[in-house]
Amino acid sequence: MKKTIDLLTLKAEARKKLNGYCRVCPVCDGRACAGEVPGMGGTGTGASFMENVKALSAIKVNLSAVHDIISPDTTTSFFGQQLETPIMAAPMVNYPINTGSGLTERDAAEAIVTGSHLAGSLAWIGDPVDTAMYSSWLEAMHKVGRGVAIIKPRLNHDGILEAFAKATQNGAVAVGLDVDGAGLITMKLKGHPVGPKTSEQLRELSQSTNLPFIVKGIMTVQDAVKCAEAGVDAIVVSNHGGRVLDHTCGTADALPAIAKELKGRVTIFVDGGIRSGVDALKMLALGADGVLVGRPLIVGAYGANAEGVRFLINKYTEELYAAMILMGCANLHHIDSRILFEKL
Amino acid sequence: MKKTIDLLTLKAEARKKLNGYCRVCPVCDGRACAGEVPGMGGTGTGASFMENVKALSAIKVNLSAVHDIISPDTTTSFFGQQLETPIMAAPMVNYPINTGSGLTERDAAEAIVTGSHLAGSLAWIGDPVDTAMYSSWLEAMHKVGRGVAIIKPRLNHDGILEAFAKATQNGAVAVGLDVDGAGLITMKLKGHPVGPKTSEQLRELSQSTNLPFIVKGIMTVQDAVKCAEAGVDAIVVSNHGGRVLDHTCGTADALPAIAKELKGRVTIFVDGGIRSGVDALKMLALGADGVLVGRPLIVGAYGANAEGVRFLINKYTEELYAAMILMGCANLHHIDSRILFEKL
Amino acid sequence: MKKTIDLLTLKAEARKKLNGYCRVCPVCDGRACAGEVPGMGGTGTGASFMENVKALSAIKVNLSAVHDIISPDTTTSFFGQQLETPIMAAPMVNYPINTGSGLTERDAAEAIVTGSHLAGSLAWIGDPVDTAMYSSWLEAMHKVGRGVAIIKPRLNHDGILEAFAKATQNGAVAVGLDVDGAGLITMKLKGHPVGPKTSEQLRELSQSTNLPFIVKGIMTVQDAVKCAEAGVDAIVVSNHGGRVLDHTCGTADALPAIAKELKGRVTIFVDGGIRSGVDALKMLALGADGVLVGRPLIVGAYGANAEGVRFLINKYTEELYAAMILMGCANLHHIDSRILFEKL
Amino acid sequence: MKKTIDLLTLKAEARKKLNGYCRVCPVCDGRACAGEVPGMGGTGTGASFMENVKALSAIKVNLSAVHDIISPDTTTSFFGQQLETPIMAAPMVNYPINTGSGLTERDAAEAIVTGSHLAGSLAWIGDPVDTAMYSSWLEAMHKVGRGVAIIKPRLNHDGILEAFAKATQNGAVAVGLDVDGAGLITMKLKGHPVGPKTSEQLRELSQSTNLPFIVKGIMTVQDAVKCAEAGVDAIVVSNHGGRVLDHTCGTADALPAIAKELKGRVTIFVDGGIRSGVDALKMLALGADGVLVGRPLIVGAYGANAEGVRFLINKYTEELYAAMILMGCANLHHIDSRILFEKL
Repeated sequence: MKKTIDLLTLKAEARKKLNGYCRVCPVCDGRACAGEVPGMGGTGTGASFMENVKALSAIKVNLSAVHDIISPDTTTSFFGQQLETPIMAAPMVNYPINTGSGLTERDAAEAIVTGSHLAGSLAWIGDPVDTAMYSSWLEAMHKVGRGVAIIKPRLNHDGILEAFAKATQNGAVAVGLDVDGAGLITMKLKGHPVGPKTSEQLRELSQSTNLPFIVKGIMTVQDAVKCAEAGVDAIVVSNHGGRVLDHTCGTADALPAIAKELKGRVTIFVDGGIRSGVDALKMLALGADGVLVGRPLIVGAYGANAEGVRFLINKYTEELYAAMILMGCANLHHIDSRILFEKL
Repeated sequence: MKKTIDLLTLKAEARKKLNGYCRVCPVCDGRACAGEVPGMGGTGTGASFMENVKALSAIKVNLSAVHDIISPDTTTSFFGQQLETPIMAAPMVNYPINTGSGLTERDAAEAIVTGSHLAGSLAWIGDPVDTAMYSSWLEAMHKVGRGVAIIKPRLNHDGILEAFAKATQNGAVAVGLDVDGAGLITMKLKGHPVGPKTSEQLRELSQSTNLPFIVKGIMTVQDAVKCAEAGVDAIVVSNHGGRVLDHTCGTADALPAIAKELKGRVTIFVDGGIRSGVDALKMLALGADGVLVGRPLIVGAYGANAEGVRFLINKYTEELYAAMILMGCANLHHIDSRILFEKL
Repeated sequence: MKKTIDLLTLKAEARKKLNGYCRVCPVCDGRACAGEVPGMGGTGTGASFMENVKALSAIKVNLSAVHDIISPDTTTSFFGQQLETPIMAAPMVNYPINTGSGLTERDAAEAIVTGSHLAGSLAWIGDPVDTAMYSSWLEAMHKVGRGVAIIKPRLNHDGILEAFAKATQNGAVAVGLDVDGAGLITMKLKGHPVGPKTSEQLRELSQSTNLPFIVKGIMTVQDAVKCAEAGVDAIVVSNHGGRVLDHTCGTADALPAIAKELKGRVTIFVDGGIRSGVDALKMLALGADGVLVGRPLIVGAYGANAEGVRFLINKYTEELYAAMILMGCANLHHIDSRILFEKL
Repeated sequence: MKKTIDLLTLKAEARKKLNGYCRVCPVCDGRACAGEVPGMGGTGTGASFMENVKALSAIKVNLSAVHDIISPDTTTSFFGQQLETPIMAAPMVNYPINTGSGLTERDAAEAIVTGSHLAGSLAWIGDPVDTAMYSSWLEAMHKVGRGVAIIKPRLNHDGILEAFAKATQNGAVAVGLDVDGAGLITMKLKGHPVGPKTSEQLRELSQSTNLPFIVKGIMTVQDAVKCAEAGVDAIVVSNHGGRVLDHTCGTADALPAIAKELKGRVTIFVDGGIRSGVDALKMLALGADGVLVGRPLIVGAYGANAEGVRFLINKYTEELYAAMILMGCANLHHIDSRILFEKL
């Protein structure tokens, strides 16, 4: 794993180019940017973003070094794709309004998608609604040949199907909706009203595509079960990075009950507050099959484009690798709640 | 919902006009103004004010977007009045001594009462004891044609009845007492000694008016039951914004037990630390029928007079609306404890 | 209760005269002065001092104003003395080394003892070991005609008996030992080695005086029971203001179990972190019969001598009075755990 | 116990010579140096380092002074060595890269080993891999005639045996491995790959030496039991000062379950966050037989060389002595969980 950059330089460069839109804090925890939507923050008090970080941070792991696991295996496969790591890029769009003019949407798309690919991972792309911006993401995905496309939960299903079709043509290996976008009532003003989806609507949308179908933005067992019953292939436990509703619990708090109910029936992803390989490992131990990282990869993109994104995903994967040694996990399937500390 | 102002400008203007009496903090949580009574703070260490915010903040909500609730209904009715929102203005008086010379009592009354009315809500007015000041509030209420008047728990019941009569003549749709004012021992020096009220006294006062009768300042099940048994129509779970007694629990901590006992028998309002539509929604989920917002509306009034107050109540109501979508609540009666997160 | 001074002026003057030995913080909580022994702080990390404040602060009270208690009674009596308040001055000595040259030991003794007396309370005096300093306290006590003398747990019992005798001659109404001084191993160097006391030794000392006998520095049920069995009249739940052992629990955490076991068998006092009348009320609700206030009265003494001490004890007593109204407590015997908030 | 230096001067001198590598904070808690590896910090967010301090700090002790323990005994013996104190120096190496150029590895070794010896304690030395550096430690140990050598868990057992042999020749009274070094994947690049050890490997290594054999870096009951079954003589409950894995629990949280299972079968040591004699006492109460102190002794070494280290170990031992008086513990075997506070 060749490194052409170092973390301090990366962060310094990103801090400069982000120009205050993101402060590139020592730990990205949602405090400095609280309420900055648009921007990088969580909505309102920023509590939902901060809670993601707090919930993960409250979980402690068991160090163990009396065993024979010397070279753990961090590889996995999702949607038929062989990956070097279970750590992927979360869908994030609308860079100009959220992160300033340091990168165009096209530059950002290229950095995130290519960087993820170079790290042996998979980028998830989002739905900026604006057609030109969406094209930037589709082209970046087309270039590397794979990706996952998550579309906003528009009331107009034709719009969704069209976005799915374009994604499919450009190499998507799975498509889905981020239903937690349902509360973005300002999208109505832009001509693209959104809203929640019923089980029946999810089943219809799922059946409208040959690709695996994902529902992102699941925070309750009830919603997760509805997804499974609707034939959804994968869910993402997510509160949209805390950007759509103030005062939700952290995703690490929502995940265990959902995994307990559905592990093995649907693929379970999670995002929210993951800042290291150990954080990823905690989420896997809580029941996730894979994880998505969001804001830190924006820092990677602003700091060193695709190389910056690759650098960070590699870094997290190395941390995951070292952590698997220190917990005696030979591969990702060996990671379960036994590696989490429980007080006497 | 037309907006002629934005939040940042509103807060900047208010900060200027409040001139240090209130710092207009990012989150109004009682830390900066701890102990500032008179002023905007909580009494003593400010713990009771801060606890209101902390108790609410500790409650986490369940995000849910797999359902069919696209256009929730935020309307309600109290005291025979149809309202666009369950979020009303709390009674606050004595502006010159508490918030400086930026607004006269008359200006403040006009801003709070008219602004609430413009937002389709209802203003609660308080009892400044001073006759001229009380007239300012009565006139503002008279102009919009409705309001709720809360009078101090004077030992002299004739004074209370006189204040009720004036309120009735000026459009009050309900009257009541804030019994938590009982500890204001300095009021004796001003010739208006106050004190607690027995069930019998509450029954008498309640029967002395044809309007619905409210008791504000209830923090225990025992007191709430006494109110119900005395024939009180509505109670307000409140610690007076933390201004009368240091170290009480937050109202969000006191509310559930009271609602469990009395929901449906009396109308239950609550104030204390409500800073957004999601906070209002939490209080409804904990058992309240409606909520009162205090200090933030002072910022609204100082920032842009009646338009500022309208702007904020509208903002909270929009947040409530969006949050109801993200929890699948079709109307206010669908909001209950199932929307609150409980850890596995 | 005439006031000739105000709190802000008192604190400003004290801050000046204390010259950094005490910062006169907004809330006296042991953070700024952590580790300053000699000085005003707690020993080591200051955790025991801070824990006193935290433990009290974590306890929340029930506001109640539906009742008929309009003029509560704050008076009590200890050791045959009628007092206006259950709030007394804790024994504190060695001012020059701990609080600087702003006040001599004689000035401090005069301020604390006379100020307490003027407030209708009782001062407890300590044992500075130095004979001249002890005389300052005895003279101040002699002048007002009453007080309580707490002597260090010297290995040499003759020294203790001599100190008791002097106190008795100068008006002491009770005497005792602060056994938590047992760990002050540096006192050996000064020729006055100290140490723990057995039940038998406490019984002997108790029987050596006709005055009520007090053991101060009790933090466990076991020690409290030993005191009761040794015929001790009163105990003080105390960790010596956090000055003798780092990392003890707060006294508010230790008190309930001790009161549960011994309430009514011995008189129970408590000190540690009491900063207001509500704090005093909490301690009474947890099982104390009376409370001692320490450091804040030093601020009173430095701020305005005896008048400053009187002002603060009066202030706390007024707060206690107002709080008793807002909890429906007619007198001190009506204060019990029912006024403390317990979460549903 | 003669003191030629004082704490403030020691810390000021150390702060100067450490030149920012360590800020010599009021309490050494891992916040200021979070992530500084190399350096003095914990890895990643620094959470594992900070958790060591927090976990210890959350434990509260019972003050008790009604008993007859006047002169407690702090002596103990490990590995056949009579010691004045159960507080020893933790193995720490690679000073130039971690603490700057203020001390050479040789100076540091001399300070730590000699200082520990002068305090009647025992120094544990580590494994800097570099041969010259290791020699510095061996020479320092040789000079005082005793010590404990902890070697990195190299995959190459011959390297380990060679290091054991050198230690044995230079006066080691016990040898062992810090298995928690297993995750240092960068050591492979230096030609000394490391990894976890199986029970069988530990048994082999244990049998390869006539000295008592220690495994350091045990954080789970499972690993501890494997060590016991492999014939290991002693374990050290340790997370390597939080330097190898982010987000572990604190060692004070891991210790009780391990001690409950193994107390008496193997000797149990612990390190992590011990900053005073009271901290040491807490660890003994949680089940440890002895404790190791790390970073603070570096401050001692930089502040006043061997005298600084001696000063600090003496200071901790005096604090332990005073604390044993205030808890009624005649000797180290009398320290158990009864001295820890449990809330009613």
